[in-house]
Amino acid sequence: MASIQISSTQNPRIKHLMALQQRSQQRRNEQRIVVEGARELQHCIKAGFTIESIFYCSDLFDIDSLQVSNCEIIEVTPQVYDKIAYRGSTEGIIAIVEPRYLTLSDIELGDAPLIVVLEGVEKPGNIGAVLRSADAAKATAVVVCDPLTDLYNPNLIRSSIGAIFTVPCVACSSEACIKFLKENNIKILTAQLQDSELYYHTPMRGATAIIMGTESTGLTQVWREAATAHIRIPMRGALDSLNVSVSAAILLFEAVRQRES
Amino acid sequence: MASIQISSTQNPRIKHLMALQQRSQQRRNEQRIVVEGARELQHCIKAGFTIESIFYCSDLFDIDSLQVSNCEIIEVTPQVYDKIAYRGSTEGIIAIVEPRYLTLSDIELGDAPLIVVLEGVEKPGNIGAVLRSADAAKATAVVVCDPLTDLYNPNLIRSSIGAIFTVPCVACSSEACIKFLKENNIKILTAQLQDSELYYHTPMRGATAIIMGTESTGLTQVWREAATAHIRIPMRGALDSLNVSVSAAILLFEAVRQRES
Repeated sequence: MASIQISSTQNPRIKHLMALQQRSQQRRNEQRIVVEGARELQHCIKAGFTIESIFYCSDLFDIDSLQVSNCEIIEVTPQVYDKIAYRGSTEGIIAIVEPRYLTLSDIELGDAPLIVVLEGVEKPGNIGAVLRSADAAKATAVVVCDPLTDLYNPNLIRSSIGAIFTVPCVACSSEACIKFLKENNIKILTAQLQDSELYYHTPMRGATAIIMGTESTGLTQVWREAATAHIRIPMRGALDSLNVSVSAAILLFEAVRQRES
Repeated sequence: MASIQISSTQNPRIKHLMALQQRSQQRRNEQRIVVEGARELQHCIKAGFTIESIFYCSDLFDIDSLQVSNCEIIEVTPQVYDKIAYRGSTEGIIAIVEPRYLTLSDIELGDAPLIVVLEGVEKPGNIGAVLRSADAAKATAVVVCDPLTDLYNPNLIRSSIGAIFTVPCVACSSEACIKFLKENNIKILTAQLQDSELYYHTPMRGATAIIMGTESTGLTQVWREAATAHIRIPMRGALDSLNVSVSAAILLFEAVRQRES
């Protein structure tokens, strides 16, 4: 199936792939991202992203198992694959893909949107894990405010297991997001311990946004002041916080429960 | 405050600490474990564990901030600390501690126990993350069946942020656990997609155990057959599973919600 075969790690195509993988500035400049792994790429293809080229190693991946057309297929040797694989050479497939940089106005709100907003969350792994829960809860969108990482960071794609492609995801400023939520009459529920009500006492059937900050510093004042209500997950033990992706999942599925029961 | 100072990485005390850190067999043989990090050690001390010795670097950690007595305090140089720190030298404190190997009969069941059972979960990081949620939900205990890792693995302690010390945690066989749950009239709710009811339709106010398997293979037949009910979290998106620690948190906090409302 492959039209091109590459056996040298010094091949310019290989060098280009690795540059895209390692540098967010290059991804942004070229409007190209790197997607590694079978599950991630399958979600990406299914979600209708444009695949530019696929690099695979036939020892590790059966290229005929992939439903994809109109893209360049490049077979590489195990030695080359080992070089380009970000995660260790277990998957055998890496693609260059056109990203989508959505804006708030791209979000299709529908009847009763359920949006997750992350403010200042640093770790790509945490954002990816939130996206995975947002996919399961069929959230309308995830908005990352004042992002400290680009949305197509390899660790984010990996930890999302491809949910970055299945859940609409927007990066913007907190101010723009607050304006958008208010204009669309979406309730702003900020997750914080102080002056808050228990999350399961808070109605979430209508248009709802759940706002989460970092584990260490929480939300900034601009969000606290914009809130319709402050909500908290009860911390009944000795520790004083939950992981942000765990908190997001608990709150999202409370909304699912209320909406379905 | 330190009675001993060590400046050589070749010191036998340093070599011994590193052996305990790296080898689960040695931890088991000596009945000693290694606890790194300020938060983790504070939870360990507060939970009444016996601290044998503390190694700290005064450039990184203020030893007077720690409330501990009857243990040996050893000051090490930054160079030595760098060598012994498992996580990179940010915390400045590592201790050797006596572990507790609890059995099922050590669990104080009380009125309406809420137990999490993990079967065959491999990654120490996932077990640690479940413990963290179990602490927040004040679960009665976490039982790890047929464990593939020891409960005091450094990655497990780290990802639990010390919840391994605050939540009673037992390792045993699935058979022993099923027998224990049945003898104590504890409902067995197995998390599985097939033939299951939505988790929020399942009563969890009475004595309840939530049983989770691995993401890849799920629960074994022995648990499916022992179940009082099969429960599932609805997967409404494109992906087909949630992380085990995220699933555990959603189910645990549904029990909290039902019990408190």
